[in-house]
Amino acid sequence: MIGVAILGSTGSIGQSTLGVLARHRDRFRVVALTAHSNGELLRAQAGEWRPAYVGLVNGAKGEGGKGKGTACLVEAATHPDARIVVNAIVGAAGLEATLAALGAGKRVALANKETLVMAGALVTQTARDGRGEIIPVDSEHSAVLQCLTGRSPSDVERLVLTASGGPFRTWDPVQITDATVQQALRHPTWSMGRKITVDSATLVNKALEVIEAHFLFALAYQQVDVVVHPQSIIHALVELVDGSVLAQMGFPNMELPILYALTHPERVADSGLRRFDALAAGALTFEPVSPERFPAYALGRAAGEAGGTAPAVFNAANEIAVAAFLEGRIRFGRIAETIEQVLVDYAPTDAASLEAVLAADEHGRRKAREAVCS
Amino acid sequence: MIGVAILGSTGSIGQSTLGVLARHRDRFRVVALTAHSNGELLRAQAGEWRPAYVGLVNGAKGEGGKGKGTACLVEAATHPDARIVVNAIVGAAGLEATLAALGAGKRVALANKETLVMAGALVTQTARDGRGEIIPVDSEHSAVLQCLTGRSPSDVERLVLTASGGPFRTWDPVQITDATVQQALRHPTWSMGRKITVDSATLVNKALEVIEAHFLFALAYQQVDVVVHPQSIIHALVELVDGSVLAQMGFPNMELPILYALTHPERVADSGLRRFDALAAGALTFEPVSPERFPAYALGRAAGEAGGTAPAVFNAANEIAVAAFLEGRIRFGRIAETIEQVLVDYAPTDAASLEAVLAADEHGRRKAREAVCS
Repeated sequence: MIGVAILGSTGSIGQSTLGVLARHRDRFRVVALTAHSNGELLRAQAGEWRPAYVGLVNGAKGEGGKGKGTACLVEAATHPDARIVVNAIVGAAGLEATLAALGAGKRVALANKETLVMAGALVTQTARDGRGEIIPVDSEHSAVLQCLTGRSPSDVERLVLTASGGPFRTWDPVQITDATVQQALRHPTWSMGRKITVDSATLVNKALEVIEAHFLFALAYQQVDVVVHPQSIIHALVELVDGSVLAQMGFPNMELPILYALTHPERVADSGLRRFDALAAGALTFEPVSPERFPAYALGRAAGEAGGTAPAVFNAANEIAVAAFLEGRIRFGRIAETIEQVLVDYAPTDAASLEAVLAADEHGRRKAREAVCS
Repeated sequence: MIGVAILGSTGSIGQSTLGVLARHRDRFRVVALTAHSNGELLRAQAGEWRPAYVGLVNGAKGEGGKGKGTACLVEAATHPDARIVVNAIVGAAGLEATLAALGAGKRVALANKETLVMAGALVTQTARDGRGEIIPVDSEHSAVLQCLTGRSPSDVERLVLTASGGPFRTWDPVQITDATVQQALRHPTWSMGRKITVDSATLVNKALEVIEAHFLFALAYQQVDVVVHPQSIIHALVELVDGSVLAQMGFPNMELPILYALTHPERVADSGLRRFDALAAGALTFEPVSPERFPAYALGRAAGEAGGTAPAVFNAANEIAVAAFLEGRIRFGRIAETIEQVLVDYAPTDAASLEAVLAADEHGRRKAREAVCS
């Protein structure tokens, strides 16, 4: 039995992970669960799964958890019975837990892409040093990993990550800047948490994924392209050096990437997953990313290419701007503007230490808060 | 340097193979060439490549070849300097050479799918006994192999081979029966030899490929589906037991499957191959196979499922009928009718010996000739 710790068990990915595990109780057991603030659901999950460890980051009234505060994330991530840590925390808060789990030699099933974006060099180095393993839970990166499993990394010429294009793919660029929260949360193909859904509407999510792919698969940015594919059926294309293209496809559903992150490189039968049917898929189409509609995408790629602490600042600025947008404090177009204001005269430094990364993160948040309030 | 023998070097696949080899002279050398009757082109190829062995099956005036008659195919296929034998012969004539090469422990890059259809059990058993290796040159089967390389065969749930649907995909079923040779040879996406182009118009080619896949990948017929995909961009889909679908894609071009058959499981850079560009691909669509338009497809699947010598009889009847159609002796609709007449009361026997297979082939040809002339 493989022990699994889930950080962020009450969120979208966390709940899907428990849904997958419920069909594979013969292979996996849950040894730790943490949640941010939904103590009620966490208590129900703990009642069902009986994990050895339960932690509630914002536990108000001493409810449920043994662990408290952000320290509980690292405790859960390094739990001795956990072989796999599913990091389903949203945003920068997941970084220390990822580093701790990798340093302890665990597999991190990583839905928390911000971790790699902020501190890609540090995270991958920690994995190497600690003999930990990073398996992506993002559908696009899972697709790439699935295509590459059993192949030599030197076979890869180029990746193409697909983007649905989000709810504003066909909108007038000027109208997008005044989109409401409700409009931004109406994702055409994926059902996800609020923050990532807004990131999909700005295409910041795709920029984060480009940076994530750069670190996960050790590829140069020129080797990571993005194409808009509104149907979200083909999750990524991998072009090999001989020109052949491999792809992974399926109806949009996070349970497959979650299952694969748990079982990689093995394949485990799962009758709970919807079978793909090409005849039911409709026409598959591809478009370029529109720079007018999605200015934040280019900002993210540029931050990735600038390197060092620039991606951490980009990510921090985006987190603050998205939170402000969701709270109704700024309009949609201000998200990209905020990121641009924060990055325009930022000089990145080396991101090899946790301190440097956290300082860049703090800098990005402060500058973004200033920009949001100005 | 890896020695390559090419059987059928003056045909479409043979010429493409030399085109590929011309870009990889550092890895491969041509040690044997054979052709059916185009002595002039064979002589030119031999002049350029200087193979140790040259054979012309129908050499009229002692021209060019050292080898003569069908025996030259086996001589080329077992040439001691050949590590890879590209079998690009059309039809049943390639069987003995395939068996000889596999028995001698060589890799057979198999464009001659009829070989596997006629004698799948015998061919795969000969490969196992002789430690030979069968690598498909068909684009669909190459796609499957590319998806499966590095994976466990037990991971596979199902294959879906794609079919362009040929020139008559949208025709009225009754009008198809009177299609001319010129119309049948106007393939929408692939440039190929005449026989296989007619097979693509009847979808017999796809039935042959289903049988080929059954033997190549040791899958039950229920595990091999076909879907019409008019753009011929996605060559095959492989559904794994967890529901994930892998695919191989590219613009239609036989040079990639040829290159991969030579280099498998390695990937070798080749700047001569056109890069895939999703933005240039247009919409990718899928349709079911129309039983009204393509009656021969179901006949072929049924022959495969009947097993034993039935696929050899199916293949033989088709070869005779296609030849008669190309000679203007029967109309297009008679191809399927001929196959049906030959198979309707045929009782298959065991196909474990070459004699049994050749007898079934002869039976199918005789019955088909009778049907064609009646």
